[in-house]
Amino acid sequence: MIVVLKPNPNQAQLDNLVDWLKKHEITVHTSNGASQVLLGLVGDTSVLDIDLIKALDIVEDVKRIQEPYKAANRKFHPLDTVIDINGVKVGGGHFAMIAGPCSIETEEQIIEVARAVKAAGANLLRGGAFKPRTSPYSFQGLRGQGLKLLLEAKKDTGLPVVTEIMDLSQLDLFEDVDVIQVGARNMQNFELLKALGHVDKPVLLKRGLANTYQELLMSAEYIMSGGNEKVMLCERGIRSFETYTRNILDIGAVPVLHKLSHLPVIIDPSHATGMSWMVPTMALGAAAAGADGLIIEVHNDPAHAWCDGPQSLTPEAFAELAPKVKALRKLVVDNAQD
Amino acid sequence: MIVVLKPNPNQAQLDNLVDWLKKHEITVHTSNGASQVLLGLVGDTSVLDIDLIKALDIVEDVKRIQEPYKAANRKFHPLDTVIDINGVKVGGGHFAMIAGPCSIETEEQIIEVARAVKAAGANLLRGGAFKPRTSPYSFQGLRGQGLKLLLEAKKDTGLPVVTEIMDLSQLDLFEDVDVIQVGARNMQNFELLKALGHVDKPVLLKRGLANTYQELLMSAEYIMSGGNEKVMLCERGIRSFETYTRNILDIGAVPVLHKLSHLPVIIDPSHATGMSWMVPTMALGAAAAGADGLIIEVHNDPAHAWCDGPQSLTPEAFAELAPKVKALRKLVVDNAQD
Amino acid sequence: MIVVLKPNPNQAQLDNLVDWLKKHEITVHTSNGASQVLLGLVGDTSVLDIDLIKALDIVEDVKRIQEPYKAANRKFHPLDTVIDINGVKVGGGHFAMIAGPCSIETEEQIIEVARAVKAAGANLLRGGAFKPRTSPYSFQGLRGQGLKLLLEAKKDTGLPVVTEIMDLSQLDLFEDVDVIQVGARNMQNFELLKALGHVDKPVLLKRGLANTYQELLMSAEYIMSGGNEKVMLCERGIRSFETYTRNILDIGAVPVLHKLSHLPVIIDPSHATGMSWMVPTMALGAAAAGADGLIIEVHNDPAHAWCDGPQSLTPEAFAELAPKVKALRKLVVDNAQD
Amino acid sequence: MIVVLKPNPNQAQLDNLVDWLKKHEITVHTSNGASQVLLGLVGDTSVLDIDLIKALDIVEDVKRIQEPYKAANRKFHPLDTVIDINGVKVGGGHFAMIAGPCSIETEEQIIEVARAVKAAGANLLRGGAFKPRTSPYSFQGLRGQGLKLLLEAKKDTGLPVVTEIMDLSQLDLFEDVDVIQVGARNMQNFELLKALGHVDKPVLLKRGLANTYQELLMSAEYIMSGGNEKVMLCERGIRSFETYTRNILDIGAVPVLHKLSHLPVIIDPSHATGMSWMVPTMALGAAAAGADGLIIEVHNDPAHAWCDGPQSLTPEAFAELAPKVKALRKLVVDNAQD
Repeated sequence: MIVVLKPNPNQAQLDNLVDWLKKHEITVHTSNGASQVLLGLVGDTSVLDIDLIKALDIVEDVKRIQEPYKAANRKFHPLDTVIDINGVKVGGGHFAMIAGPCSIETEEQIIEVARAVKAAGANLLRGGAFKPRTSPYSFQGLRGQGLKLLLEAKKDTGLPVVTEIMDLSQLDLFEDVDVIQVGARNMQNFELLKALGHVDKPVLLKRGLANTYQELLMSAEYIMSGGNEKVMLCERGIRSFETYTRNILDIGAVPVLHKLSHLPVIIDPSHATGMSWMVPTMALGAAAAGADGLIIEVHNDPAHAWCDGPQSLTPEAFAELAPKVKALRKLVVDNAQD
Repeated sequence: MIVVLKPNPNQAQLDNLVDWLKKHEITVHTSNGASQVLLGLVGDTSVLDIDLIKALDIVEDVKRIQEPYKAANRKFHPLDTVIDINGVKVGGGHFAMIAGPCSIETEEQIIEVARAVKAAGANLLRGGAFKPRTSPYSFQGLRGQGLKLLLEAKKDTGLPVVTEIMDLSQLDLFEDVDVIQVGARNMQNFELLKALGHVDKPVLLKRGLANTYQELLMSAEYIMSGGNEKVMLCERGIRSFETYTRNILDIGAVPVLHKLSHLPVIIDPSHATGMSWMVPTMALGAAAAGADGLIIEVHNDPAHAWCDGPQSLTPEAFAELAPKVKALRKLVVDNAQD
Repeated sequence: MIVVLKPNPNQAQLDNLVDWLKKHEITVHTSNGASQVLLGLVGDTSVLDIDLIKALDIVEDVKRIQEPYKAANRKFHPLDTVIDINGVKVGGGHFAMIAGPCSIETEEQIIEVARAVKAAGANLLRGGAFKPRTSPYSFQGLRGQGLKLLLEAKKDTGLPVVTEIMDLSQLDLFEDVDVIQVGARNMQNFELLKALGHVDKPVLLKRGLANTYQELLMSAEYIMSGGNEKVMLCERGIRSFETYTRNILDIGAVPVLHKLSHLPVIIDPSHATGMSWMVPTMALGAAAAGADGLIIEVHNDPAHAWCDGPQSLTPEAFAELAPKVKALRKLVVDNAQD
Repeated sequence: MIVVLKPNPNQAQLDNLVDWLKKHEITVHTSNGASQVLLGLVGDTSVLDIDLIKALDIVEDVKRIQEPYKAANRKFHPLDTVIDINGVKVGGGHFAMIAGPCSIETEEQIIEVARAVKAAGANLLRGGAFKPRTSPYSFQGLRGQGLKLLLEAKKDTGLPVVTEIMDLSQLDLFEDVDVIQVGARNMQNFELLKALGHVDKPVLLKRGLANTYQELLMSAEYIMSGGNEKVMLCERGIRSFETYTRNILDIGAVPVLHKLSHLPVIIDPSHATGMSWMVPTMALGAAAAGADGLIIEVHNDPAHAWCDGPQSLTPEAFAELAPKVKALRKLVVDNAQD
């Protein structure tokens, strides 16, 4: 961390700052220029509150050199994290092919889709029971009943299941769920993240619509600093000035998050684009960029889906896509596993 | 709502759609062009799921004409809503001057600030007990203990208090709080919004960093459709490509939200800019644009504040600003009340 | 185009509007609802000025159904445009592998790089002579002298060349250039676009940092409506709230522009990311999404490049990437040509 | 400028870098930490190409401390620049009230509007002759003929005139124009900016839709470094995710640009919002935030304006607004002049 002092700083205040930093076990290197003095802080600066230092009278600016996240930081954990979801591995060359409907609707629907996506090559089943909807007048999901149906489909197919939690009061219902998803709108629901830090289950953490890579990693850090290191990061589109697609899928998140962190990176082309005709193309693009997994909406009858029909693939379209993804990964991903 | 059909739509499917719309008490007007057919839907289209219609094979596009919010919509409630907060009125010409520290730190601090802002012209006291922080390593607020100190300051000064809730499990602690604040990161925490719909207290709902006016009004609608119509909207800066200021304060939100809705609109220049030297200027700009209130961070010792010191005014600076706001409102706001 | 009228529109004004539309050979379909009247306009609405209609007293809103571009619109030109650049075809399954240095520096440099990228599989050579730089104090390119060196490299290798024009006064110098590039900052330099409409050379039109797909296509329309239909669209990153990478590469532009238009779509991963280590990954992602070409910065000595060294690949890194792109295209692009 | 070196940098390369910096008259302060070495560069770093340094093998990151603009920088020119436009002063407490139609249409129209806005308190007349339009099929302005009509209105009313240039080839036509406007889309048309650096006329430089404050100041620097120091900065709305208004008016640009630069700051509420009903409110907000001027579209018959009618005020509405702006400025701007 670099502290840029204002010209001619008050010496007593400067001494106070240096003493305070030393108490936090930070070594201070002073660099006296003609018109400005810089302090170089060396040590574990992640514990320092940057805003506190910025607020001091003698300080003009503070610039971070080190990242403020530790548990999620590749610098301290050079090897890829591999997460084991009841036998399905994700990360370090292992690929998560997560598929299923936006909303769980009926037992027949979820079981039919689950069987179809398993046959086509999915190794994890997704399905929404608690649905975050912009409008209070839209369908809010089958909630507890939906979770039961999802677990029926798990039993039927053997696929581990991924589903979204919307509030920490729902946590008890997730006992038999394999992966807990945190939605984009809850990425900075810090009370929920803290609670998930004490759960022994993988968490699929979606990036918020306008959140930076660093904020995503800080939210992962909330979970990891509580003791739960099984976090998968998920890019699902960011908000921009363009309105033709629902969001812009930031495929660059894959190499960037791989560089900054050791956690697996999953891409959600369905929510990012909001249109099924774009999903296969963007799925291939994400896989070619080295994503550790895809989460794709598949519905047996998209035109009558209870929500987000326009972005769902048919089982047939998914069955055409999945083997292409596999073949492409063999070609471009160095450590791709079967 | 306008439904644009694809060329040569299947007649049986079109009949099905029209029948389904009639069941929802929607009247359908068909407009046959040379190359396209349009359906104009008349009735309460807020109950229709636009995505569902878009997913149909015969539909090319759907465009909303009516807003999807009702309770918050000025079309159905032409008069300004005036909210009474234990005697302090907000909206319809009545101005909320909300001030106080970012974080409640000690009894002395909160009482000293409360007395100072009251003397300077504040009519509501703000102070944070539960603090949403990007980093798990930053100060998280005094939480329950902080609420107690805030209520001490309320007793001491008589100022009604505004403070943020971060999770619905905290609701019981807010019994003596006058206004419950929902932070920007929780604007679409729908479970929390639903719970607040059943509370008999005003809610200060902050706009998310990258949320549209319509999404903000839909979140207000979550609260109002539950029965609690005392919602104040708050603009606190939106995220953009510019990094010099923390966010961009969208003062245009004042006239737009006033046009679309009857709810009061409060502006938070402290969080929007993140720098105290900009706060008075932006506060004056917001007041000149007709805001129904300001929420401003004031700290007796900003350089040693436990959080967000850089954006806090001193009590002296606030005392200089408050009368200017009042004088300016008399000049430009037609129905400005004392 | 749909015109939404205000409630109870003045009949005389409405008649005027309808007459005026008929003069433009637009057929008007009126749809009378309980509370609103809609006009459906059928015909060539691209000639109507939407703002003019919006300004009328009786009009509440106007919504476009048809796209405002014609020459660039796939609806009217279903087949992919294939552009022939002195024997190198681009589009319709033919791939442009454009490589070369950011700036032309010396004869030795441009010839060495040109030979290296040709050997590695490039079929077009890029190099900047006129350089748009944010700062007036940065290197502005060798300008006319740079163009001469680039043409030397063309003679030496036989590769057609692509280089940027910054002002229409430079046009005479581009006589022997094969493809004229319009940079992102000039995407809406309409006087330049009009001039390029009268040139018989392919134009590589880069999307502005915050321009929509439709605006890009309207800028293509400026060139095409002048008579020059040889336009290649180029996505080079859009500006967002994220600052870790220079821009966000919008790979979704590939399928969207392919759907809306018949023009080839080229991706520039070098400028989009600004960091060479991300370039190969993003290039593969773009190729997997079906791009018709890549434009990649390659420099024989990136650490001493006169500009944009950090985003340039070495010839060795490019030679590793190019065959991977080719193999991947064979796997996922249906009509990929050799 | 701070250079962050990679761990264990090669000593020979480091010596080379330090020597090279010394040749540019930069003093280097080295700060050796446990795990990293920082170089603090002191001197005129605006001449250094930050990208060049970043590209070096031994460098991890480079952070600017000093702004890269000099002529536009308030640090080197503490006093407000006051620009004299044929007797009308702008800046340093002097206010520019610029009004007139979007497009010049006829002699009657421009003279009628010019007289009306002068009577209402405008001291500068605006009017567009060369019109940048997104579509090649929209009205492109009367061009040379429009300039002639504008100069007629100048003769008639004595108001100095402001009008937009779109290409440097048009410069000869601007001889009798008082202020040359550079539009948002041309903010980084560097060849045009360079040409304007050699003109002895004030330039009104509009901020691009997605350009930062620093980029705007660097574009001003292009003009000023050529010798023309009479630059007025203009904020006219930035692009965001919100689509209800055309753009977001960033009123915060006023205090920020005043802090960073000594140049006058003008606000354009007409283009920013695109809707006339918002213009007076936003004009008042901008004036309260300390803007040095407003540029407002006024048309005698907005419903029949040839372009941008929806955002034009009537002369009556402008006559109501102008005195409010004046009264408000007296109240809140310390050095407001009559």
